[in-house]
Amino acid sequence: MSERLYAKLAVIGCGLIGSSVILAARAVGVVGRIAVYDASPAARGRIRELGFADDVADDPRDAVRGADLVIFATPPLSIGPAAAQVADVLKPGATVTDVGSVKAAVAEALGKVVPAGVFVIPGHPIAGAETSGPDAGFATLFRDRWTILTPRITDDPAYAEALARLTTFWEALGAHVDVMDERHHDLVLAVTSHLPHLIAYNIVGTAADLEEVTRGEVIKYSAGGFRDFTRIAASDPIMWRDVFLANKDAVLEILGRFTEDLQALSRAIRWGEGDKLQELFTRTREIRRGVIDAGQETAEPDFGRQRREPLV
Amino acid sequence: MSERLYAKLAVIGCGLIGSSVILAARAVGVVGRIAVYDASPAARGRIRELGFADDVADDPRDAVRGADLVIFATPPLSIGPAAAQVADVLKPGATVTDVGSVKAAVAEALGKVVPAGVFVIPGHPIAGAETSGPDAGFATLFRDRWTILTPRITDDPAYAEALARLTTFWEALGAHVDVMDERHHDLVLAVTSHLPHLIAYNIVGTAADLEEVTRGEVIKYSAGGFRDFTRIAASDPIMWRDVFLANKDAVLEILGRFTEDLQALSRAIRWGEGDKLQELFTRTREIRRGVIDAGQETAEPDFGRQRREPLV
Repeated sequence: MSERLYAKLAVIGCGLIGSSVILAARAVGVVGRIAVYDASPAARGRIRELGFADDVADDPRDAVRGADLVIFATPPLSIGPAAAQVADVLKPGATVTDVGSVKAAVAEALGKVVPAGVFVIPGHPIAGAETSGPDAGFATLFRDRWTILTPRITDDPAYAEALARLTTFWEALGAHVDVMDERHHDLVLAVTSHLPHLIAYNIVGTAADLEEVTRGEVIKYSAGGFRDFTRIAASDPIMWRDVFLANKDAVLEILGRFTEDLQALSRAIRWGEGDKLQELFTRTREIRRGVIDAGQETAEPDFGRQRREPLV
Repeated sequence: MSERLYAKLAVIGCGLIGSSVILAARAVGVVGRIAVYDASPAARGRIRELGFADDVADDPRDAVRGADLVIFATPPLSIGPAAAQVADVLKPGATVTDVGSVKAAVAEALGKVVPAGVFVIPGHPIAGAETSGPDAGFATLFRDRWTILTPRITDDPAYAEALARLTTFWEALGAHVDVMDERHHDLVLAVTSHLPHLIAYNIVGTAADLEEVTRGEVIKYSAGGFRDFTRIAASDPIMWRDVFLANKDAVLEILGRFTEDLQALSRAIRWGEGDKLQELFTRTREIRRGVIDAGQETAEPDFGRQRREPLV
């Protein structure tokens, strides 16, 4: 068990991430009482059945009252309104954070409604899955994953203390913590997460709409690469709608680069420029080696049916 | 052990698929002697060390001579030239097949050089991995995967017998076999495999070329979705160069559809049309359910670090 960091944790929004935070925090004992609120009455009922929180509130203000750490784990565009609803009951000296995939828009929204004397430290654990809802959570989700915090720049020692404590909290959950400017976070994530999701959603949509190839064929022969995209494109629709709307500028910038490059690749195929294709395909292998060297994934293939993901 | 189907098997090209065919055929005992040839002297040396073939020939003609089944497992554009090299030593009544991801171009190339009296039945096992070379093979690669055969249409009973035997061969290796028109195969695979690879190569290339985001950052924060693309984009460069050149028309057609759809999606983001985004992201979930229902992947998440592939 780790040191107790917060006497009371409140989690607002209890999907995959919210429930995983609760399970992980409980497992390592870094918080005392845990209160949770979810906007969906069905989800609240389910959380009561699962029994992993001390209090399941029907009003978010009841969950937040007296909490030392408040984590907003709702889709990005709901974080501001959710914070506004509870702003006047936030405990002075409490820390307010979130887990959204977009940081500049969330930081701005929180900054507008959270009163002085409460420490706003936006955050983003880079971990997840295509599953959602309170049943999806698991205590090891954040282990060996990066959590990025985007604190404001200040020489307030109390804020620095709050940041250090929140860092320790995430480390206790198994994460590595980085601190970053919120706009840079949004650009980095536009590349490593938002564009991959956009592309996956798009390719699955394109495949579903073809007339010459049936949906049954697409599914049947999906082991050739497509299947990986279907998994990504099964991610939570509302969360991802919010991500693209809240990080519009960075996503459109990166998408513009991607489209330019794709047009060049298309042209190389049309004109039979094999050397250009081979050069690119060889270069992209280096990045894969980087991913493996950085411990983001194993290089050792596993030959079990489900772990190995066969391509063509 | 299954019934012996071919007294001698020759495999030309011994990468991931070639070596897996040999290991799988040997494991179930459907062939007698196995001869292999690879254009790379280093690969031939390695195959001798691994010891999974009876004969490792330095001349493909020696491997093919007397073989009842000849499998070309080279990159698609090498199949025609490789077949031309051995055409005059093919045994009358033998079956010639291949494992290429493109079928119309390969069928045409084989049809031009293989003499009458030898049965050409192009094939494509939809299985693989991003690994390559003779060390990459494993006997269970084809288990519960589809193999598509694209035979010519004929009422020759000897050809029908050869097709039935080759079907039994793939089934003995654990595969399910479908028969399909070669042009339709190429269109289906353009959707389920070729476009996903093209997109993955492209996004990894785009990410590597950014100035504002370092390569180190891309790798470090790759768990948000990008990592899956790096795996696909680590596939064999020469094989994939050949796939795009040999299936140009179908790939460009499907790519055109994808690009149109992506432009519409980009526009929806720019204009903040959340409903359109949410509608697409909800629809793509259905395809995922189809993939799971069809047994192409498990719905049950596994919480081990390497099996679970966390997204944001």
